[in-house]
Amino acid sequence: MSDDHATYSFSALQTDPAFGEVTANLDAVERHLEGLRTDLLVLPELFASGYSFVDKDELLGLAEPFDGGETTERLRGWSRGTGGMIVAGFPERDGDKVYNSAAVVANGELLDCYRKVHLFGFEYDVYEPGDRPFAVQEHAGLRVGTMICFDWMYPEAARTLVLRGADVIAHPSNLVLPGWCQRTMLVRALENRVYTVTANRYGTEHRPPRPALHFTGSSRIASPRGEAVADAPAVGVTLLQTTADIVLARDKRVPSGNDVLAERRPDFYER
Amino acid sequence: MSDDHATYSFSALQTDPAFGEVTANLDAVERHLEGLRTDLLVLPELFASGYSFVDKDELLGLAEPFDGGETTERLRGWSRGTGGMIVAGFPERDGDKVYNSAAVVANGELLDCYRKVHLFGFEYDVYEPGDRPFAVQEHAGLRVGTMICFDWMYPEAARTLVLRGADVIAHPSNLVLPGWCQRTMLVRALENRVYTVTANRYGTEHRPPRPALHFTGSSRIASPRGEAVADAPAVGVTLLQTTADIVLARDKRVPSGNDVLAERRPDFYER
Repeated sequence: MSDDHATYSFSALQTDPAFGEVTANLDAVERHLEGLRTDLLVLPELFASGYSFVDKDELLGLAEPFDGGETTERLRGWSRGTGGMIVAGFPERDGDKVYNSAAVVANGELLDCYRKVHLFGFEYDVYEPGDRPFAVQEHAGLRVGTMICFDWMYPEAARTLVLRGADVIAHPSNLVLPGWCQRTMLVRALENRVYTVTANRYGTEHRPPRPALHFTGSSRIASPRGEAVADAPAVGVTLLQTTADIVLARDKRVPSGNDVLAERRPDFYER
Repeated sequence: MSDDHATYSFSALQTDPAFGEVTANLDAVERHLEGLRTDLLVLPELFASGYSFVDKDELLGLAEPFDGGETTERLRGWSRGTGGMIVAGFPERDGDKVYNSAAVVANGELLDCYRKVHLFGFEYDVYEPGDRPFAVQEHAGLRVGTMICFDWMYPEAARTLVLRGADVIAHPSNLVLPGWCQRTMLVRALENRVYTVTANRYGTEHRPPRPALHFTGSSRIASPRGEAVADAPAVGVTLLQTTADIVLARDKRVPSGNDVLAERRPDFYER
């Protein structure tokens, strides 16, 4: 990274997908992205499929392979347009297994597929727990770590991504707990001195026999100072955008002079 | 723990000690504790000595042994009166080394001495970094984990205490960063489903050549739901008190049914 390229633009799109209407949901997102240029775009968890699968069979019918699926093909195309990285959630089929995954793409290429490590509630009924490491992908000098939704609850997730070099944490989400994650992401940003980009969905899904789920919107981008630098409303399609100073994310010092990453004392930590 | 003894009382005393006036500071605290009965009392970091030592020689003049020092002797006496555990900060002398420590006492006995693992700013000039594990002490069925002030910045500190069985985290503090810790402690409580008791000091110390330090008060007790259940003002001697349900702190489930401690996946975490 040179001093003259320390500034990057981050974006998050908050949407309300219609359950199971993959092509229509993709078309709607595509319209919202028209003309967008951004170094990092984050879309919600399961942004094209919807969330509340009633059983594994229904999920298998909508899950897609990472390489060659309808959703990741569209992401590849969009990434040529935005010029940066895109991180977006989709149900990933691998044989007869399905993962709650996030595709990481740039320049029309598939870079990585993260499989959600910490499943939430009913997800255990239909998904396999993630079996790949928390990983960081670099594009044009920007290092992006990916986690999905309920991973927010575990400080180890964001910490691991930052120890592996992330400047920013891309965080596709379908949040339902009242404000817990949005508040916590300010702390994840602060304790790691890193940017975080949480793209949440809004709206309600009610697919009996599952209970109705109300998604909380309020997508949020936080800075390494632990401050919200862009906030979406609780309801409504919203494109959040901010400019980020990566020098700030790579300087782990707080005002006291402490370097909070270098001064960790892992010998005292229970894993 | 039986069902009929699931409820405990927690207290935190917020004070403004006069630098170096150990006996007077102890006398002042003693007056505020008169008649107090509580299962856990937390006092601030370095509550009797003051904080802003100009050099190691000055610190050596005020540091005390854990066993037999003026401060811990007074703590032992107070613990007979309160009937519960007391956790309080003091400068601990051990040979020619000094630690920023917290004494844990109950029933007039010294239970443990925790030495601050994550030193803050200038503290590196005068203290040795802590060399003892994060530890939990049990008294009358209540399991208390201790950390000091800047340990808040490291999620690993509270996490380690909870993995070692803490129902509540006693957190003597001398906080100067603007609101960062108070906000973060709600997340430490939430992510671990544990009570936290932060006893902070208030007021200003200016001891040249050190810069003036403004302590932020706003001592806080948080519940396993991540909510503030008792808050002190930014300025003023305040005795915070709350009743705590330890069954809640031992049930790590969130409303989705996830058991956030049991569902950790350490194989994926970088230590």
